Amino acid sequence: MKIGVLGTGMVGQTISGKLLELGHDVMVGTRNVAQTLARTEPYATGFPAFSVWQQQHPDAKLGTYADAAQHGELAVNATNGIGSLEALELAGAAHLAGKLLIDIANPLDFSQGMPPSLTVCNTDSLGEQIQRAYPDVRVVKTLNTVTAFLMVDPGQVADADHTMFVCGNDAAAKTQVTAWLKEWFGWKDVIDLGDISNARGMEMWLPLWVRLFGTLQTGMFNLKIVR
Amino acid sequence: MKIGVLGTGMVGQTISGKLLELGHDVMVGTRNVAQTLARTEPYATGFPAFSVWQQQHPDAKLGTYADAAQHGELAVNATNGIGSLEALELAGAAHLAGKLLIDIANPLDFSQGMPPSLTVCNTDSLGEQIQRAYPDVRVVKTLNTVTAFLMVDPGQVADADHTMFVCGNDAAAKTQVTAWLKEWFGWKDVIDLGDISNARGMEMWLPLWVRLFGTLQTGMFNLKIVR
Repeated sequence: MKIGVLGTGMVGQTISGKLLELGHDVMVGTRNVAQTLARTEPYATGFPAFSVWQQQHPDAKLGTYADAAQHGELAVNATNGIGSLEALELAGAAHLAGKLLIDIANPLDFSQGMPPSLTVCNTDSLGEQIQRAYPDVRVVKTLNTVTAFLMVDPGQVADADHTMFVCGNDAAAKTQVTAWLKEWFGWKDVIDLGDISNARGMEMWLPLWVRLFGTLQTGMFNLKIVR
Repeated sequence: MKIGVLGTGMVGQTISGKLLELGHDVMVGTRNVAQTLARTEPYATGFPAFSVWQQQHPDAKLGTYADAAQHGELAVNATNGIGSLEALELAGAAHLAGKLLIDIANPLDFSQGMPPSLTVCNTDSLGEQIQRAYPDVRVVKTLNTVTAFLMVDPGQVADADHTMFVCGNDAAAKTQVTAWLKEWFGWKDVIDLGDISNARGMEMWLPLWVRLFGTLQTGMFNLKIVR
Protein backbone atom coordinates (compact mmCIF):
# COMPACT_ATOMS: atom_id res chain seq x y z
CA MET A 1 0.00 0.00 0.00
CA LYS A 2 1.25 3.50 -0.76
CA ILE A 3 1.59 5.41 2.49
CA GLY A 4 2.73 8.95 3.14
CA VAL A 5 4.18 9.51 6.61
CA LEU A 6 4.53 13.16 7.54
CA GLY A 7 7.43 13.64 9.95
CA THR A 8 11.04 12.42 10.06
CA GLY A 9 11.55 12.20 13.84
CA MET A 10 11.03 9.49 16.45
CA VAL A 11 7.42 8.70 15.52
CA GLY A 12 7.90 9.09 11.77
CA GLN A 13 10.93 6.81 11.74
CA THR A 14 9.30 4.17 13.95
CA ILE A 15 6.03 4.05 12.04
CA SER A 16 7.78 4.15 8.66
CA GLY A 17 10.24 1.45 9.65
CA LYS A 18 7.45 -0.89 10.65
CA LEU A 19 5.37 -0.14 7.54
CA LEU A 20 8.41 -0.82 5.32
CA GLU A 21 9.03 -4.08 7.16
CA LEU A 22 5.43 -5.02 6.33
CA GLY A 23 6.13 -4.38 2.66
CA HIS A 24 4.40 -1.05 2.18
CA ASP A 25 5.56 1.63 -0.22
CA VAL A 26 6.41 4.45 2.18
CA MET A 27 7.33 8.03 1.41
CA VAL A 28 8.34 10.11 4.40
CA GLY A 29 7.46 13.78 4.15
CA THR A 30 9.46 16.70 5.49
CA ARG A 31 9.44 20.48 5.21
CA ASN A 32 12.73 20.78 3.34
CA VAL A 33 14.28 17.70 1.77
CA ALA A 34 17.76 19.18 1.36
CA GLN A 35 17.87 20.36 4.98
CA THR A 36 16.60 17.02 6.26
CA LEU A 37 19.27 15.15 4.29
CA ALA A 38 21.99 17.57 5.38
CA ARG A 39 21.28 17.09 9.07
CA THR A 40 23.64 14.62 10.75
CA GLU A 41 23.15 15.14 14.48
CA PRO A 42 20.64 12.90 16.30
CA TYR A 43 17.27 14.19 17.50
CA ALA A 44 16.80 15.21 21.14
CA THR A 45 14.96 11.90 21.59
CA GLY A 46 18.17 10.05 20.75
CA PHE A 47 16.81 8.99 17.39
CA PRO A 48 19.26 9.27 14.48
CA ALA A 49 19.22 11.98 11.85
CA PHE A 50 16.93 10.95 9.01
CA SER A 51 19.87 10.49 6.61
CA VAL A 52 21.44 7.97 9.00
CA TRP A 53 18.12 6.17 9.45
CA GLN A 54 17.57 6.09 5.69
CA GLN A 55 20.88 4.29 5.16
CA GLN A 56 19.42 1.49 7.32
CA HIS A 57 16.08 1.72 5.49
CA PRO A 58 17.04 2.12 1.83
CA ASP A 59 13.48 1.45 0.66
CA ALA A 60 12.23 4.58 2.45
CA LYS A 61 11.50 7.40 0.05
CA LEU A 62 11.86 11.00 1.16
CA GLY A 63 9.90 13.92 -0.24
CA THR A 64 8.26 17.15 0.76
CA TYR A 65 5.09 17.05 2.85
CA ALA A 66 3.24 17.60 -0.43
CA ASP A 67 5.10 14.75 -2.18
CA ALA A 68 4.35 12.36 0.67
CA ALA A 69 0.68 13.34 0.90
CA GLN A 70 0.32 12.89 -2.85
CA HIS A 71 2.13 9.54 -2.73
CA GLY A 72 -0.02 8.04 -0.02
CA GLU A 73 -3.38 6.36 -0.35
CA LEU A 74 -3.13 6.61 3.42
CA ALA A 75 -1.51 9.55 5.22
CA VAL A 76 -0.04 9.49 8.71
CA ASN A 77 0.51 12.67 10.71
CA ALA A 78 3.64 11.91 12.69
CA THR A 79 4.77 15.51 12.96
CA ASN A 80 5.41 17.42 16.15
CA GLY A 81 1.93 18.47 17.31
CA ILE A 82 2.72 22.15 17.57
CA GLY A 83 3.71 22.13 13.89
CA SER A 84 1.06 19.76 12.56
CA LEU A 85 -1.36 22.31 11.11
CA GLU A 86 1.45 24.03 9.22
CA ALA A 87 2.80 20.71 7.98
CA LEU A 88 -0.65 19.72 6.71
CA GLU A 89 -1.01 23.09 5.01
CA LEU A 90 2.26 22.43 3.21
CA ALA A 91 1.04 18.91 2.38
CA GLY A 92 -1.90 20.55 0.64
CA ALA A 93 -5.62 19.99 0.92
CA ALA A 94 -5.78 18.71 -2.67
CA HIS A 95 -3.25 15.96 -1.93
CA LEU A 96 -5.17 14.85 1.18
CA ALA A 97 -8.73 15.14 -0.13
CA GLY A 98 -10.86 12.08 0.53
CA LYS A 99 -7.96 10.18 2.10
CA LEU A 100 -7.75 8.52 5.46
CA LEU A 101 -5.39 10.42 7.76
CA ILE A 102 -4.14 8.76 10.92
CA ASP A 103 -3.32 11.56 13.37
CA ILE A 104 -0.74 10.55 15.99
CA ALA A 105 0.40 14.03 17.00
CA ASN A 106 0.18 15.61 20.45
CA PRO A 107 0.06 19.41 20.76
CA LEU A 108 2.70 19.50 23.50
CA ASP A 109 4.62 22.70 24.12
CA PHE A 110 7.98 22.05 25.79
CA SER A 111 9.19 25.64 25.31
CA GLN A 112 8.58 26.53 28.95
CA GLY A 113 10.40 23.43 30.20
CA MET A 114 8.93 20.54 32.13
CA PRO A 115 6.15 19.75 32.50
CA PRO A 116 5.00 20.64 28.98
CA SER A 117 1.57 22.16 28.47
CA LEU A 118 -0.91 21.52 25.68
CA THR A 119 -1.34 24.29 23.11
CA VAL A 120 -4.99 23.28 22.74
CA CYS A 121 -7.17 21.29 25.13
CA ASN A 122 -10.36 21.04 27.18
CA THR A 123 -12.88 22.54 24.74
CA ASP A 124 -10.94 21.69 21.56
CA SER A 125 -8.13 19.43 20.39
CA LEU A 126 -5.57 19.09 17.63
CA GLY A 127 -7.56 16.22 16.16
CA GLU A 128 -10.61 18.44 15.85
CA GLN A 129 -8.59 21.34 14.46
CA ILE A 130 -7.27 19.07 11.73
CA GLN A 131 -10.71 17.64 10.93
CA ARG A 132 -12.20 21.17 10.77
CA ALA A 133 -9.40 22.42 8.51
CA TYR A 134 -9.79 19.42 6.15
CA PRO A 135 -13.47 18.47 6.28
CA ASP A 136 -13.17 15.96 3.41
CA VAL A 137 -10.26 14.12 5.02
CA ARG A 138 -11.21 11.08 7.10
CA VAL A 139 -9.25 11.79 10.27
CA VAL A 140 -8.75 8.99 12.79
CA LYS A 141 -6.90 9.85 15.98
CA THR A 142 -4.93 6.98 17.47
CA LEU A 143 -1.53 5.86 18.82
CA ASN A 144 -0.81 9.27 20.40
CA THR A 145 -1.22 7.76 23.86
CA VAL A 146 1.94 5.60 23.87
CA THR A 147 5.64 5.94 23.15
CA ALA A 148 6.72 5.27 19.55
CA PHE A 149 8.16 1.79 20.18
CA LEU A 150 4.85 0.57 21.57
CA MET A 151 2.80 2.07 18.75
CA VAL A 152 4.11 -0.53 16.33
CA ASP A 153 4.95 -3.29 18.83
CA PRO A 154 2.62 -3.23 21.85
CA GLY A 155 3.76 -6.76 22.73
CA GLN A 156 6.94 -5.25 24.15
CA VAL A 157 4.90 -4.63 27.32
CA ALA A 158 2.83 -7.35 29.04
CA ASP A 159 2.20 -9.31 25.85
CA ALA A 160 0.09 -6.40 24.52
CA ASP A 161 -2.41 -6.75 27.36
CA HIS A 162 -3.22 -3.03 27.36
CA THR A 163 -5.49 -0.61 25.55
CA MET A 164 -5.41 1.60 22.46
CA PHE A 165 -8.10 4.13 21.52
CA VAL A 166 -9.42 5.35 18.19
CA CYS A 167 -11.77 8.23 17.51
CA GLY A 168 -13.06 9.98 14.42
CA ASN A 169 -16.19 10.96 12.55
CA ASP A 170 -15.99 8.27 9.85
CA ALA A 171 -17.08 4.86 11.14
CA ALA A 172 -15.64 2.93 8.19
CA ALA A 173 -12.30 4.68 8.58
CA LYS A 174 -12.18 3.71 12.25
CA THR A 175 -13.03 0.09 11.44
CA GLN A 176 -10.23 0.05 8.88
CA VAL A 177 -7.70 1.63 11.24
CA THR A 178 -8.68 -0.74 14.05
CA ALA A 179 -8.05 -3.69 11.74
CA TRP A 180 -4.64 -2.28 10.80
CA LEU A 181 -3.74 -1.68 14.44
CA LYS A 182 -4.38 -5.35 15.12
CA GLU A 183 -2.98 -6.87 11.91
CA TRP A 184 0.00 -4.62 11.31
CA PHE A 185 1.10 -3.82 14.84
CA GLY A 186 -0.40 -6.46 17.14
CA TRP A 187 -2.82 -4.42 19.22
CA LYS A 188 -5.39 -6.61 20.98
CA ASP A 189 -7.68 -4.19 22.84
CA VAL A 190 -8.83 -1.20 20.74
CA ILE A 191 -11.66 0.98 22.06
CA ASP A 192 -13.61 3.22 19.68
CA LEU A 193 -14.42 6.27 21.80
CA GLY A 194 -16.69 7.94 19.26
CA ASP A 195 -16.37 11.09 17.17
CA ILE A 196 -13.27 13.23 16.70
CA SER A 197 -14.08 15.39 19.74
CA ASN A 198 -12.79 12.46 21.78
CA ALA A 199 -9.33 13.59 20.68
CA ARG A 200 -9.62 15.97 23.66
CA GLY A 201 -9.48 13.16 26.16
CA MET A 202 -6.82 11.26 24.21
CA GLU A 203 -4.55 14.30 24.03
CA MET A 204 -5.29 15.33 27.64
CA TRP A 205 -3.94 11.94 28.72
CA LEU A 206 -0.48 13.26 27.86
CA PRO A 207 0.07 15.38 30.99
CA LEU A 208 -0.41 12.23 33.08
CA TRP A 209 1.69 10.19 30.64
CA VAL A 210 4.58 12.65 30.87
CA ARG A 211 4.56 12.53 34.68
CA LEU A 212 4.38 8.72 34.67
CA PHE A 213 7.35 8.73 32.28
CA GLY A 214 9.24 10.71 34.91
CA THR A 215 8.10 8.53 37.81
CA LEU A 216 8.60 5.17 36.12
CA GLN A 217 11.81 6.32 34.37
CA THR A 218 10.71 4.66 31.16
CA GLY A 219 8.23 5.24 28.37
CA MET A 220 7.61 1.53 28.06
CA PHE A 221 4.23 1.52 29.78
CA ASN A 222 0.63 1.96 28.80
CA LEU A 223 -2.79 2.05 30.37
CA LYS A 224 -5.11 -0.89 30.27
CA ILE A 225 -8.78 -0.16 30.69
CA VAL A 226 -9.80 -2.77 33.23
CA ARG A 227 -13.55 -3.44 33.25
CA MET B 1 -10.18 8.37 63.97
CA LYS B 2 -12.06 11.64 63.77
CA ILE B 3 -12.66 12.44 60.11
CA GLY B 4 -14.43 15.39 58.51
CA VAL B 5 -15.88 14.64 55.07
CA LEU B 6 -16.87 17.76 53.14
CA GLY B 7 -19.73 16.97 50.77
CA THR B 8 -23.05 15.12 51.11
CA GLY B 9 -23.41 13.75 47.57
CA MET B 10 -22.31 10.56 45.83
CA VAL B 11 -18.65 10.75 46.84
CA GLY B 12 -19.30 12.10 50.34
CA GLN B 13 -21.85 9.39 51.10
CA THR B 14 -19.70 6.59 49.69
CA ILE B 15 -16.52 7.63 51.47
CA SER B 16 -18.35 8.35 54.73
CA GLY B 17 -20.22 5.06 54.62
CA LYS B 18 -17.01 3.08 54.25
CA LEU B 19 -15.21 5.07 56.96
CA LEU B 20 -18.13 4.50 59.35
CA GLU B 21 -18.06 0.80 58.55
CA LEU B 22 -14.37 0.83 59.50
CA GLY B 23 -15.30 2.33 62.86
CA HIS B 24 -14.22 5.92 62.32
CA ASP B 25 -15.93 8.94 63.91
CA VAL B 26 -17.22 10.72 60.82
CA MET B 27 -18.82 14.13 60.57
CA VAL B 28 -20.12 15.06 57.14
CA GLY B 29 -19.94 18.75 56.30
CA THR B 30 -22.42 20.74 54.26
CA ARG B 31 -23.12 24.36 53.44
CA ASN B 32 -26.46 24.57 55.25
CA VAL B 33 -27.44 21.82 57.67
CA ALA B 34 -31.15 22.67 57.74
CA GLN B 35 -31.39 22.75 53.94
CA THR B 36 -29.49 19.49 53.61
CA LEU B 37 -31.80 17.77 56.10
CA ALA B 38 -34.91 19.24 54.45
CA ARG B 39 -34.00 17.87 51.01
CA THR B 40 -35.81 14.65 50.17
CA GLU B 41 -35.32 14.17 46.42
CA PRO B 42 -32.38 12.00 45.26
CA TYR B 43 -29.28 13.50 43.65
CA ALA B 44 -28.90 13.54 39.85
CA THR B 45 -26.46 10.64 40.31
CA GLY B 46 -29.29 8.54 41.73
CA PHE B 47 -27.85 8.74 45.22
CA PRO B 48 -30.40 9.37 47.98
CA ALA B 49 -30.95 12.66 49.73
CA PHE B 50 -28.62 12.93 52.70
CA SER B 51 -31.47 12.62 55.21
CA VAL B 52 -32.46 9.29 53.67
CA TRP B 53 -28.86 8.09 53.68
CA GLN B 54 -28.40 9.18 57.28
CA GLN B 55 -31.33 7.01 58.39
CA GLN B 56 -29.33 4.05 57.07
CA HIS B 57 -26.14 5.40 58.68
CA PRO B 58 -27.24 6.62 62.10
CA ASP B 59 -23.64 7.00 63.31
CA ALA B 60 -22.96 9.66 60.68
CA LYS B 61 -22.84 13.15 62.16
CA LEU B 62 -23.83 16.16 60.07
CA GLY B 63 -22.50 19.67 60.53
CA THR B 64 -21.47 22.73 58.62
CA TYR B 65 -18.30 22.65 56.55
CA ALA B 66 -16.67 24.44 59.49
CA ASP B 67 -18.00 21.91 62.02
CA ALA B 68 -16.74 18.99 59.95
CA ALA B 69 -13.32 20.55 59.36
CA GLN B 70 -12.98 21.25 63.07
CA HIS B 71 -14.11 17.72 63.95
CA GLY B 72 -11.65 15.93 61.71
CA GLU B 73 -8.05 15.09 62.44
CA LEU B 74 -8.25 14.20 58.76
CA ALA B 75 -10.33 16.15 56.24
CA VAL B 76 -11.67 14.83 52.94
CA ASN B 77 -12.74 17.15 50.13
CA ALA B 78 -15.64 15.28 48.53
CA THR B 79 -17.41 18.38 47.29
CA ASN B 80 -18.30 19.15 43.70
CA GLY B 81 -15.05 20.46 42.20
CA ILE B 82 -16.50 23.70 40.93
CA GLY B 83 -17.59 24.55 44.49
CA SER B 84 -14.56 23.19 46.36
CA LEU B 85 -12.71 26.45 46.95
CA GLU B 86 -15.83 28.08 48.37
CA ALA B 87 -16.58 25.05 50.55
CA LEU B 88 -13.05 25.14 51.94
CA GLU B 89 -13.36 28.85 52.61
CA LEU B 90 -16.50 28.12 54.61
CA ALA B 91 -14.66 25.28 56.36
CA GLY B 92 -12.16 27.86 57.47
CA ALA B 93 -8.36 27.97 57.29
CA ALA B 94 -8.08 27.82 61.07
CA HIS B 95 -10.02 24.55 61.21
CA LEU B 96 -7.85 22.98 58.51
CA ALA B 97 -4.45 24.30 59.57
CA GLY B 98 -1.76 21.64 59.75
CA LYS B 99 -4.19 18.86 58.86
CA LEU B 100 -4.02 16.30 56.13
CA LEU B 101 -6.62 16.99 53.43
CA ILE B 102 -7.46 14.29 50.92
CA ASP B 103 -8.70 16.06 47.79
CA ILE B 104 -10.98 13.89 45.65
CA ALA B 105 -12.72 16.67 43.71
CA ASN B 106 -12.72 17.21 39.96
CA PRO B 107 -13.30 20.72 38.56
CA LEU B 108 -15.82 19.53 35.98
CA ASP B 109 -18.29 22.00 34.54
CA PHE B 110 -21.43 20.30 33.21
CA SER B 111 -23.30 23.59 32.70
CA GLN B 112 -22.77 23.49 28.92
CA GLY B 113 -23.94 19.88 28.68
CA MET B 114 -21.90 16.89 27.58
CA PRO B 115 -19.01 16.57 27.40
CA PRO B 116 -18.13 18.61 30.48
CA SER B 117 -15.08 20.85 30.44
CA LEU B 118 -12.59 21.48 33.22
CA THR B 119 -12.76 24.91 34.90
CA VAL B 120 -9.01 24.76 35.44
CA CYS B 121 -6.42 22.62 33.65
CA ASN B 122 -3.20 22.38 31.66
CA THR B 123 -1.06 24.96 33.53
CA ASP B 124 -2.90 24.71 36.86
CA SER B 125 -5.28 22.40 38.71
CA LEU B 126 -7.80 22.36 41.51
CA GLY B 127 -5.34 20.46 43.69
CA GLU B 128 -2.77 23.22 43.26
CA GLN B 129 -5.35 25.95 43.83
CA ILE B 130 -6.29 24.34 47.14
CA GLN B 131 -2.66 23.88 48.21
CA ARG B 132 -1.87 27.51 47.32
CA ALA B 133 -4.92 28.81 49.21
CA TYR B 134 -4.04 26.74 52.31
CA PRO B 135 -0.25 26.49 52.36
CA ASP B 136 -0.15 24.90 55.82
CA VAL B 137 -2.62 22.16 54.89
CA ARG B 138 -1.06 18.90 53.74
CA VAL B 139 -3.02 18.29 50.53
CA VAL B 140 -2.92 14.85 48.94
CA LYS B 141 -4.80 14.40 45.68
CA THR B 142 -6.15 10.91 45.13
CA LEU B 143 -9.23 8.83 44.24
CA ASN B 144 -10.55 11.46 41.78
CA THR B 145 -9.77 9.12 38.87
CA VAL B 146 -12.47 6.51 39.57
CA THR B 147 -16.18 6.33 40.27
CA ALA B 148 -17.21 6.52 43.94
CA PHE B 149 -17.96 2.80 44.35
CA LEU B 150 -14.43 1.88 43.28
CA MET B 151 -12.79 4.48 45.50
CA VAL B 152 -13.64 2.47 48.61
CA ASP B 153 -13.88 -0.99 47.01
CA PRO B 154 -11.52 -1.36 44.03
CA GLY B 155 -11.94 -5.14 44.23
CA GLN B 156 -15.31 -4.73 42.52
CA VAL B 157 -13.35 -4.66 39.25
CA ALA B 158 -10.75 -7.30 38.32
CA ASP B 159 -9.86 -8.13 41.91
CA ALA B 160 -8.38 -4.62 42.30
CA ASP B 161 -5.78 -5.28 39.62
CA HIS B 162 -5.67 -1.63 38.54
CA THR B 163 -3.96 1.59 39.53
CA MET B 164 -4.53 4.54 41.86
CA PHE B 165 -2.38 7.67 41.97
CA VAL B 166 -1.42 10.02 44.77
CA CYS B 167 0.34 13.35 44.54
CA GLY B 168 1.19 16.12 46.97
CA ASN B 169 4.02 18.17 48.39
CA ASP B 170 4.25 16.38 51.76
CA ALA B 171 5.99 13.00 51.47
CA ALA B 172 4.87 11.77 54.88
CA ALA B 173 1.26 12.67 54.11
CA LYS B 174 1.42 10.68 50.85
CA THR B 175 2.93 7.68 52.63
CA GLN B 176 0.11 7.83 55.18
CA VAL B 177 -2.60 8.18 52.54
CA THR B 178 -1.11 5.34 50.49
CA ALA B 179 -1.24 3.09 53.56
CA TRP B 180 -4.87 4.05 54.17
CA LEU B 181 -5.78 3.40 50.52
CA LYS B 182 -4.44 -0.12 50.89
CA GLU B 183 -5.61 -0.91 54.44
CA TRP B 184 -8.98 0.81 54.46
CA PHE B 185 -10.11 0.35 50.87
CA GLY B 186 -8.05 -2.50 49.40
CA TRP B 187 -6.02 -0.70 46.74
CA LYS B 188 -3.04 -2.76 45.60
CA ASP B 189 -1.20 -0.60 43.09
CA VAL B 190 -0.70 3.02 44.21
CA ILE B 191 1.71 5.22 42.26
CA ASP B 192 3.15 8.38 43.85
CA LEU B 193 3.42 10.78 40.92
CA GLY B 194 5.27 13.54 42.81
CA ASP B 195 4.30 17.01 43.94
CA ILE B 196 0.84 18.57 43.86
CA SER B 197 1.30 19.89 40.31
CA ASN B 198 0.64 16.30 39.22
CA ALA B 199 -2.99 17.03 40.05
CA ARG B 200 -3.07 18.48 36.51
CA GLY B 201 -2.60 15.10 34.91
CA MET B 202 -4.91 13.37 37.39
CA GLU B 203 -7.72 15.85 36.75
CA MET B 204 -7.09 15.93 32.99
CA TRP B 205 -7.76 12.19 32.94
CA LEU B 206 -11.42 13.02 33.50
CA PRO B 207 -12.27 14.02 29.91
CA LEU B 208 -11.15 10.56 28.78
CA TRP B 209 -12.89 8.95 31.77
CA VAL B 210 -16.18 10.65 30.92
CA ARG B 211 -16.04 9.46 27.31
CA LEU B 212 -15.15 5.91 28.39
CA PHE B 213 -18.13 6.04 30.77
CA GLY B 214 -20.28 6.80 27.74
CA THR B 215 -18.69 4.14 25.54
CA LEU B 216 -18.59 1.37 28.14
CA GLN B 217 -22.01 2.34 29.56
CA THR B 218 -20.69 1.92 33.10
CA GLY B 219 -18.44 3.72 35.54
CA MET B 220 -17.13 0.43 36.86
CA PHE B 221 -13.77 0.56 35.13
CA ASN B 222 -10.36 1.92 35.84
CA LEU B 223 -6.98 2.21 34.23
CA LYS B 224 -4.14 -0.09 35.10
CA ILE B 225 -0.67 1.18 34.38
CA VAL B 226 0.91 -1.82 32.65
CA ARG B 227 4.71 -1.73 32.75
